[in-house]
Amino acid sequence: MQDRQDRIDIEAEVRKTAAEFMPCGECGGHAEGRGAEMPRATAVAAALRRLLALLFPGCHGARPEHSQCRERVERSFARIAGDVERLAAGALACTGGDAAGAGKIAAEFVRALPKVRAMLMEDVEAGYEGDPAATSRMEVVMAYPGFYAIAVHRLAHVLYGLKVPIVPRMMSELAHSRTGIDIHPGATIGERFFIDHGTGVVIGETTVIGRNVKLYQGVTLGALSFPKDEATGMLMKGHKRHPNVEDNVVIYAGATILGGDTVIGHDSEIGGNVWLMDSIPPFSRVYNQTPFPRVKTREARQN
Amino acid sequence: MQDRQDRIDIEAEVRKTAAEFMPCGECGGHAEGRGAEMPRATAVAAALRRLLALLFPGCHGARPEHSQCRERVERSFARIAGDVERLAAGALACTGGDAAGAGKIAAEFVRALPKVRAMLMEDVEAGYEGDPAATSRMEVVMAYPGFYAIAVHRLAHVLYGLKVPIVPRMMSELAHSRTGIDIHPGATIGERFFIDHGTGVVIGETTVIGRNVKLYQGVTLGALSFPKDEATGMLMKGHKRHPNVEDNVVIYAGATILGGDTVIGHDSEIGGNVWLMDSIPPFSRVYNQTPFPRVKTREARQN
Amino acid sequence: MQDRQDRIDIEAEVRKTAAEFMPCGECGGHAEGRGAEMPRATAVAAALRRLLALLFPGCHGARPEHSQCRERVERSFARIAGDVERLAAGALACTGGDAAGAGKIAAEFVRALPKVRAMLMEDVEAGYEGDPAATSRMEVVMAYPGFYAIAVHRLAHVLYGLKVPIVPRMMSELAHSRTGIDIHPGATIGERFFIDHGTGVVIGETTVIGRNVKLYQGVTLGALSFPKDEATGMLMKGHKRHPNVEDNVVIYAGATILGGDTVIGHDSEIGGNVWLMDSIPPFSRVYNQTPFPRVKTREARQN
Repeated sequence: MQDRQDRIDIEAEVRKTAAEFMPCGECGGHAEGRGAEMPRATAVAAALRRLLALLFPGCHGARPEHSQCRERVERSFARIAGDVERLAAGALACTGGDAAGAGKIAAEFVRALPKVRAMLMEDVEAGYEGDPAATSRMEVVMAYPGFYAIAVHRLAHVLYGLKVPIVPRMMSELAHSRTGIDIHPGATIGERFFIDHGTGVVIGETTVIGRNVKLYQGVTLGALSFPKDEATGMLMKGHKRHPNVEDNVVIYAGATILGGDTVIGHDSEIGGNVWLMDSIPPFSRVYNQTPFPRVKTREARQN
Repeated sequence: MQDRQDRIDIEAEVRKTAAEFMPCGECGGHAEGRGAEMPRATAVAAALRRLLALLFPGCHGARPEHSQCRERVERSFARIAGDVERLAAGALACTGGDAAGAGKIAAEFVRALPKVRAMLMEDVEAGYEGDPAATSRMEVVMAYPGFYAIAVHRLAHVLYGLKVPIVPRMMSELAHSRTGIDIHPGATIGERFFIDHGTGVVIGETTVIGRNVKLYQGVTLGALSFPKDEATGMLMKGHKRHPNVEDNVVIYAGATILGGDTVIGHDSEIGGNVWLMDSIPPFSRVYNQTPFPRVKTREARQN
Repeated sequence: MQDRQDRIDIEAEVRKTAAEFMPCGECGGHAEGRGAEMPRATAVAAALRRLLALLFPGCHGARPEHSQCRERVERSFARIAGDVERLAAGALACTGGDAAGAGKIAAEFVRALPKVRAMLMEDVEAGYEGDPAATSRMEVVMAYPGFYAIAVHRLAHVLYGLKVPIVPRMMSELAHSRTGIDIHPGATIGERFFIDHGTGVVIGETTVIGRNVKLYQGVTLGALSFPKDEATGMLMKGHKRHPNVEDNVVIYAGATILGGDTVIGHDSEIGGNVWLMDSIPPFSRVYNQTPFPRVKTREARQN
């Protein structure tokens, strides 16, 4: 009976709460484009899986037989073009953009894939050469979070350049979720890029990174402060807020580099936990002057 | 033959090891409530997905047609009430609690949802206003890990308050796994809360956070030390161990604030990497006195 | 019409780009072992799920009825032996190893499981005793990322010892992805190991950790520098690069300990954010001499 009473309570509660919760007029809430369907996270994830299977067959997804290869590759390409067209159309329609442009966007995206693949091949090399624990290039492709993050970034960055709303950010957030590496799709990153371990890395939207740069876990390339719009009091969006990192720079774990005017000159080395808000010239080495930490042994404490 | 021999070896090995591994009397091992079934991680994840689809239709999950809206919302509510009742009953039964209370818990949970939704709507605003890279409120809802983490927290916190064992922690751990943000379901967090990037954030069980607080990645609100029970030598559980953070505080990346007596006064700003174990008054700014890090250029080293 | 034109463009683009993208001769790219199939991430994940369900029935996966227990355990063991044999054979074949050895590897792996389970039971105790927020041992098994990470590590480490290529690293990367804790499968870790929160922890390949060690989030046990091979200029792989941590050591959040010659003596305590590249004797306490951070209140700034 107790149980029966509880059940009745729940039903009454559900009816009452549901009515108050969301009057139908309000339904759709945050979905500003009422007619269209926002891309779902699962659809974005599926498109990424197909892209990686196309770019690295056998490492991600199945490897086709030699005789069926060209046919399989063409079919993959066509399917990916369809994915991108659908995702772009939904995102454009729901944010007040022109969904009719989605076809052109998909064609541009497909056209960019060979270049993306060539850059990723160089990233694999950088990872294999840069980590003594890497036993093969395949291991880098299959099991290195830093490689996964840059692969997703290079794809998302193409869509960002084609002005597709929200989808690039959903892609980068999938990679962030999986790897702990948060690269805004707007960031510009050169060839032979490698992030080791990677958890906690943050690379902001207007960051520009040169060729052959290596980062460790916990590195932030971030914004220093945000000017506010005088009229609205809101933070201003869109201007250059994050640093430039030139070619052949290594940045060790936990270093934080902030500001849109900050330039790390080429061939420099930034030590662990360094906190930097000023530019440094090429060929610099920047290290914290850590006082040797205080060590007490128990014997010492007994005196 | 070699292969055949190996196969025989495996079968013998399996039989022998299995027998020694787990005598049937011991079966069930850590599942203390023998009759009941512990909630599975997949069931908890499914309940969270349904909750987010109800709270943010169109952004998470499909958006119902206008004409079917009320019906869909009521059905969702009923289903969620069933989820919560089942999860609570299993968790209570397996930990020696009273599973008969699960119905009342589900009713209370459903009753709390409108308030949770209202708070989350303010969190969306805080995220949109607080990050220059956010292009729309929808982007915050769909792609911001900090928003996902606070959404899951506000739901888990209701169950924690209703004294449901283990399930709230499974929810918070799902969010931790997905975002790198570890908020204990016991933490009390005010309106307009925003975490940017978020990887590495830790917010302990007895933390109390005011209104309009903003955290960056890697911030810890943690315990200073754990007093031990004199009788058992075990750490004491349950007392206040984590700080209070008052209204309108901003805490930058990597800052660590420890201790149950530590209070960060309202309208204060804590700089990156600051390590703080003492209270500070309202309107304070706390920054590390970093000595400018040592910079050497290669030219300098040649001298 | 516009739409039709776009569609035709996409098809032409796809055909053109696909042809240029990947001539069939190159197909297979990074998959060096042409005849065999590399283990898929999904297959590795499925094997891990089965292993955890076997090790912690009821907490991970369903709990069998008492009467069917022995039968279920034997069936699980056999299935896991099959998983491991298949994964090892694929990985060996694709990296130029001898796939015929996979049967023996699977038998050895199964033989090691009772010892792995016994160690994990002690890790559960360490977690329960070490965290005041833990309400039961079951909560540690089901919802503690540190426990998940060490469980996967102890399994991956057995495969690493049996010289299975890539698969152990895929396992550790699954745990890294889920927990933010990056333990190389080569690391040697003693009983009663506990990591609290864990996001950002990195434990390198040649690290050796004693008994009853506790780490917090963001701790790095890493390499100091990498000697290069004089002949090839490539980083040398395989030698001792990471520290030793002796019994009963506690290392607080964000501490970084580097170098293959660095030994942290037993019963020592390393403070938060300490950066250490030298050995310390047993019973030491190492803390940063943080100058108290500069605090300014708004009143002070108005003068």
